[in-house]
Amino acid sequence: METLSENAAFGGVQGVYKHASDVCNCDMTFGLFLPQEAKDGPVPVLWYLSGLTCTHENAMTKAGAQVWAAEHGIALVFPDTSPRGAGVADDEAYDLGQGAGFYVNATQDPWAPHFRMWDYVAEELPRVIDAAFAIDPERQAITGHSMGGHGALTLAMGLPGRYRSVSAFAPIANPSASDWGRKQLTAYLGADEAAWAPHDATLMMRTGGFDGPILIDQGANDQFLDLLRPEALAGAIAAQRQEASFRMQKGYDHSYFFVSSFMEDHVAFHADALWR
Amino acid sequence: METLSENAAFGGVQGVYKHASDVCNCDMTFGLFLPQEAKDGPVPVLWYLSGLTCTHENAMTKAGAQVWAAEHGIALVFPDTSPRGAGVADDEAYDLGQGAGFYVNATQDPWAPHFRMWDYVAEELPRVIDAAFAIDPERQAITGHSMGGHGALTLAMGLPGRYRSVSAFAPIANPSASDWGRKQLTAYLGADEAAWAPHDATLMMRTGGFDGPILIDQGANDQFLDLLRPEALAGAIAAQRQEASFRMQKGYDHSYFFVSSFMEDHVAFHADALWR
Repeated sequence: METLSENAAFGGVQGVYKHASDVCNCDMTFGLFLPQEAKDGPVPVLWYLSGLTCTHENAMTKAGAQVWAAEHGIALVFPDTSPRGAGVADDEAYDLGQGAGFYVNATQDPWAPHFRMWDYVAEELPRVIDAAFAIDPERQAITGHSMGGHGALTLAMGLPGRYRSVSAFAPIANPSASDWGRKQLTAYLGADEAAWAPHDATLMMRTGGFDGPILIDQGANDQFLDLLRPEALAGAIAAQRQEASFRMQKGYDHSYFFVSSFMEDHVAFHADALWR
Repeated sequence: METLSENAAFGGVQGVYKHASDVCNCDMTFGLFLPQEAKDGPVPVLWYLSGLTCTHENAMTKAGAQVWAAEHGIALVFPDTSPRGAGVADDEAYDLGQGAGFYVNATQDPWAPHFRMWDYVAEELPRVIDAAFAIDPERQAITGHSMGGHGALTLAMGLPGRYRSVSAFAPIANPSASDWGRKQLTAYLGADEAAWAPHDATLMMRTGGFDGPILIDQGANDQFLDLLRPEALAGAIAAQRQEASFRMQKGYDHSYFFVSSFMEDHVAFHADALWR
C-alpha cells in the first residue's frame, strides 16, 4: 500500500492511500480519517460511500465529517466509487462506468473484469484497512450520499450483523424503478430483474429490512427527487415497521451543502450505535 | 447582480453572486453565507480572504466555516482573490496575476487597470453586499488563509475601526522579506519599498498594530514556513504588546485540513467580538 498524502486534521490524520486491488483488478485509492484515539488502540469505523462522478476525495474535502468523527473518536473511510484506469471499461455517460460503480459485482461484459464494488467495499477494503490501521472490525457503521446512499443501505441489509447502524443522504432508494438504476443494473447485472433485487433498498426493505437503526435525510427541494424515489423507501420502511428516522428537509437540495448541514446528526447517530 | 447559485445550508443559504465591479473593471464573483437569523434582520459579517490560486469557491466548500457561522448567527463573505477574465492581465506563474491579487491596488502596468483588490474588499464589495443583503456594516470581522491571512491582517490594521477582530490561518506575515511578496509587491506597486509597508503585516504591527483582538494559527509542519515568516510577526506582536493569541499547531500543514481543524475556534473568537 502506498501513502499518497497524510494531513493532520482535527487532532487526527486524514490520509489517502493507494493499493493493488485483487477484487477490482486495478489500483484503488481511498481516504481514511483516523481520530487521535487511534494512536492508543482500535477505534470504531464509519464508512462513507459517495455518489455518481465522485472519487474518494469529494466527501473527504466537502462533507465536513471529520470534525464530528473526531468529536466521537470514530474513523472514516472514503472508498472510490468505481475501478479506474486506462485498462478499465468506461462509458461516455456520467452515470455508467468509471465513477458510477453502483456498489454491485458486475456479471456482464465489458464491466465484469473490474466492476466488483460490492466485494471491494464488503470484503477487500475492510481487510486492507484492518491489516494496516487501528480499526475495530467489530464496530462498523455505514452511510452514503445518493448512489452511495443506495450502496450503504443495500450493503447494510445484504450483510446482516456487519454494520451496527446505517444512514443515508438522499439515497437512490428504488433503482429498479428509476432511470438511476435500470440502465446501470441492466448493464452490470443483465436484463433479468431478479438479479437486481439484492441491490434495491426498497425491495430489500420489503423482504426483510435492517437489524439496527436507520437514519435517512432527504432534501425536499432535491433536483433529482424523481430519480431517487424516496417515497418508495419511506413506504416500505413504514410497512416493515423498521426502526428508522426518515426526515424530509425543507428547502435543501442534492448538494454537499445539504450533506454537510446534517452530517453532525448522522455521525452522532452512528456514534450512539458504535459506542454502545 | 446575478445569482449564480443558492443552496440551503445549515438552516441558512449559501449563495454565489456575480456583479460588474467598477473598481476591478470586470465581473467579479463572490460567495455569501447567510444564517437563518438574516431572515429577521441584519446580522454580523465575517470576511474570509482566500490564498494563492483560490477563487471564491475553495473556502466556501472546504473550510467548514458555515456550521460555526450558523451556530453563532454570523454571515460569511468569500471574495475572489483577484480580477479575472480574458481582458485581465495574467502571468504564467501561479503566484502572480489572476488568483494572486495580494489585496493591493496595483499602480504598475500591466496590472493597474484591474488589480485593485484592496479597494474591492475594503470599499466596493461591502457596499454591494450591504445594499442587497441583511448585513450589519457596524459589525464586521475578517479572517483569511495564507495570502488571505496577509490580506486580513493588513486590511484590519489599515482600516482602523472597520473590523472588530481579525484572525488568520498561516498568513504571509512579512511579504517584503519573502519570495511570497517581494516579487508581487514589485510587480503591483513598483520597486520603491516604501509603497510596500502598508501591505506587510509585520511592518504594520511594528508601527501601530490593531485596535482589537487578534488570533493567528500556524501549522508547525507547514511546508511554506520559510515563505510565511511567522516568527517575524510573532516577534512584532510581542514587542508591540498587541492583544493577540499566536498559536503554533504541532503537526499541522498548510492545507484546508489545517484551516478546517481550527475554524470552530476562529468563528467563536470573532463571534465574541461581533456580538459584544
